[in-house]
Amino acid sequence: MALVDQLDIVIPTIRNLDFLEQWRPFFQPYHLIIVQDGDPTKTIKVPPGFDYELFNRNDIERLVGDKAWCISYKDSACRCFGFLVSKKRYIYTIDDDCFVAKDPSNEDINALEQHIKNLLSPATPYIFNTLYDPYREGADFVRGYPFSLREGVPTAISHGLWLNIPDYDAPTQMVKPLERNTRYVDAVLTIPKGTLYPMCGMNMAFDRALIGPAMYFGLMGEGQPIGRYDDMWAGWCSKVICDHLGLGVKTGLPYIYHSKASNPFTNLRKEYKGIFWQEEIIPFFQQTQLSKDSTSVTACYLELAEKVRAGLGHIDPYFAKLADGMVAWIETWQALNPDYEK
Amino acid sequence: MALVDQLDIVIPTIRNLDFLEQWRPFFQPYHLIIVQDGDPTKTIKVPPGFDYELFNRNDIERLVGDKAWCISYKDSACRCFGFLVSKKRYIYTIDDDCFVAKDPSNEDINALEQHIKNLLSPATPYIFNTLYDPYREGADFVRGYPFSLREGVPTAISHGLWLNIPDYDAPTQMVKPLERNTRYVDAVLTIPKGTLYPMCGMNMAFDRALIGPAMYFGLMGEGQPIGRYDDMWAGWCSKVICDHLGLGVKTGLPYIYHSKASNPFTNLRKEYKGIFWQEEIIPFFQQTQLSKDSTSVTACYLELAEKVRAGLGHIDPYFAKLADGMVAWIETWQALNPDYEK
Repeated sequence: MALVDQLDIVIPTIRNLDFLEQWRPFFQPYHLIIVQDGDPTKTIKVPPGFDYELFNRNDIERLVGDKAWCISYKDSACRCFGFLVSKKRYIYTIDDDCFVAKDPSNEDINALEQHIKNLLSPATPYIFNTLYDPYREGADFVRGYPFSLREGVPTAISHGLWLNIPDYDAPTQMVKPLERNTRYVDAVLTIPKGTLYPMCGMNMAFDRALIGPAMYFGLMGEGQPIGRYDDMWAGWCSKVICDHLGLGVKTGLPYIYHSKASNPFTNLRKEYKGIFWQEEIIPFFQQTQLSKDSTSVTACYLELAEKVRAGLGHIDPYFAKLADGMVAWIETWQALNPDYEK
Repeated sequence: MALVDQLDIVIPTIRNLDFLEQWRPFFQPYHLIIVQDGDPTKTIKVPPGFDYELFNRNDIERLVGDKAWCISYKDSACRCFGFLVSKKRYIYTIDDDCFVAKDPSNEDINALEQHIKNLLSPATPYIFNTLYDPYREGADFVRGYPFSLREGVPTAISHGLWLNIPDYDAPTQMVKPLERNTRYVDAVLTIPKGTLYPMCGMNMAFDRALIGPAMYFGLMGEGQPIGRYDDMWAGWCSKVICDHLGLGVKTGLPYIYHSKASNPFTNLRKEYKGIFWQEEIIPFFQQTQLSKDSTSVTACYLELAEKVRAGLGHIDPYFAKLADGMVAWIETWQALNPDYEK
């Protein structure tokens, strides 16, 4: 399966040429959207042979205008700008320190192909299937799985994992500096309805038509009190909306090889407030019920923005600003995607 | 880890000598409770060297007295009698067509040891950890997992899986007669709170002190309108009670080798009504909320019995009888386990 004309690859920045060279056999047929996360005067080098667009901060200001403040600066959260300007149905987003991993038989893993499989087959959020993905070759629904649920629901998000450097927070990085993930778990599974998970933006794909407007990566980086919660924010919001709209979220395969741990001291500074705040944010999302009148992703997201303002504003003035950012994001989405219906 | 003095192995019947011979290296240190599921005049042969008790129908009648009707006859559901009479904290139950499986490095899998690991380490039902069991060597909680939840909750149930013959219902067996499970998924995970799963009794362990009274395998076999829903029933009831009491349920490793598919035609006859009924039973359990006053497993189970009577009785008179059976089971549990506190 390949979706060359229907999928864009969004990369927040590219700091080394090796990255695209290694992915060349898999990425070259696709269109790349590179969103430069820092100083626009610096140059990002893209090796020859790739079809790409490169957006820097000046491009973002030009295209989003007076709402450009809702796109983070000097943070990989800026990647969501790529989701805005894509014209494709599917998005795959990956960080530039993620390389091609090997499966247990030492073959290169085509991560994109597995994400596409995940997105094109249904998800099963209502009951847990103990043999994992029932649509995979060699598997099925187990005894006791209701027949009325075996059609599944459309899959909106495919969350892939990481060999080598695991996606740990700063305290865990500090406590276990040498821990490496070497366990290849050969499974894809649906995160059940009503259950949250920490969505990592390193290796993740989604159906832009089904869930795109929920994939806002929040306000991070320069001028903001936190970092490293951009993908978490998108994960919490999109999961609540998927649950509300009857869409599926999968996690598991494919793996990429995460080459380099980011600096745990820098990370601690960025995460510091988030570590406290998530203790309140997560129960907030667990309890959030969207209204029956919100039947599109954009309507759900605008409702969620007001719930964030009302329900999290007491933690810090940041959340009122974030709620404003969520609204500005949807207005920008609608302006740049006038035909988007969800 | 071994819990020789704290764990009993419960086997519903033994139809071949190979079974115990193959498991000898792993089972011989433990006490076996064999519950003969059919004609009590037939003899079950146990090879020398095992420490065991064998209960047949006459023993059940003698020990349970006028409530013996609540223990199924001519069905492997009778295994729950073994849970009643055990005096140990932990139970491992396995079917006699389940043999020692091999892991990907071709080593024999010590299923019991893995179940014990699962039961003795906490579970994480409130948020899904994308690297699966965070307590396993080489793994941890991922970024974005709240620190307040990292202690986890006590694990009550460890549900193991099956290589070779998968646990399919009769229709799936008929449609895919040649399907074999060859995928070794190297993971243990917690089934999230609020999510049901089809619990299979073939290869399963639990903490009798934490959840024992919920492990009633219902009314199946001779004189009953359905079969092959005994473990499903125990799975639904125990999951709802675990969720209510803040206990964890894990699924995944260990695998056993399931040698022989049961006859799909016989299975269809047994399952026939259950296939219809589960379409109503599962939503019933999904919506069931137990009262805050039910703070012990026995209180929860008695409350559930009355909910079953009120909520499922319209489907078939069977459910009123099953509710009576649930009450008789708890009364028997209390009579045979006077010191049981949960």
